[in-house]
Amino acid sequence: MSDEQGMKRALQAYIDHFNASNPQAISALFADEATVEDPVGTPLISGRTAIAAFYERSVATGARLKLAAPIRGSHGNAAAMAFDVELNMPQGPALIRVIDTFTFDAAGKFTSMRAFWGPGDMELPK
Amino acid sequence: MSDEQGMKRALQAYIDHFNASNPQAISALFADEATVEDPVGTPLISGRTAIAAFYERSVATGARLKLAAPIRGSHGNAAAMAFDVELNMPQGPALIRVIDTFTFDAAGKFTSMRAFWGPGDMELPK
Repeated sequence: MSDEQGMKRALQAYIDHFNASNPQAISALFADEATVEDPVGTPLISGRTAIAAFYERSVATGARLKLAAPIRGSHGNAAAMAFDVELNMPQGPALIRVIDTFTFDAAGKFTSMRAFWGPGDMELPK
Repeated sequence: MSDEQGMKRALQAYIDHFNASNPQAISALFADEATVEDPVGTPLISGRTAIAAFYERSVATGARLKLAAPIRGSHGNAAAMAFDVELNMPQGPALIRVIDTFTFDAAGKFTSMRAFWGPGDMELPK
């Protein structure tokens, strides 16, 4: 289990690497056998290779992540954060409101990420 | 599975019932076999009777819940929200920053609630 401050630093690093367009640094935060469910309710992305490809595609959109509230820890190996995804679409700027939850292994790597957002959490260009 | 807007209304009702000091209305949002993990990393509270007792105690603190960002849905039977718990302690006002995630049954009742907050998410009176 990671310490609470270490887990929060890892979530902040995820945001910072995303906004620095560095997908390799994002996927390095994950354990080899980790899973990503983004959004919750869609099939799991399993393993570092598939996760690396997912973040290559995600970062290539040019999206930027902005925390909506301070990162939350837990009393276990988990942490969570609420943020907004700012996207530029051909039609104009768009926004997706998201909450991500993460679990950690003993080495402080992510073992899972789950992204809570639904169709109603997207603000599309008018 | 609940529809996204119905799930979000249930989360807003949870906040509103808490702030109206109505623990019976909160526990009525849960399915009979539901579980509560608050905070994440502590033992599960299982079943409506134990959950009702938990909310009786929680509401009796006089705490008030304030959303920190709009409620998030998902593409499945789950939703999440970030909020602050405002507490009056003998030493003065305190704050706990929380993210709750919920799952739903086909009738729109909560089957689980998990509360992400750690020791570092509490602001205690000076």
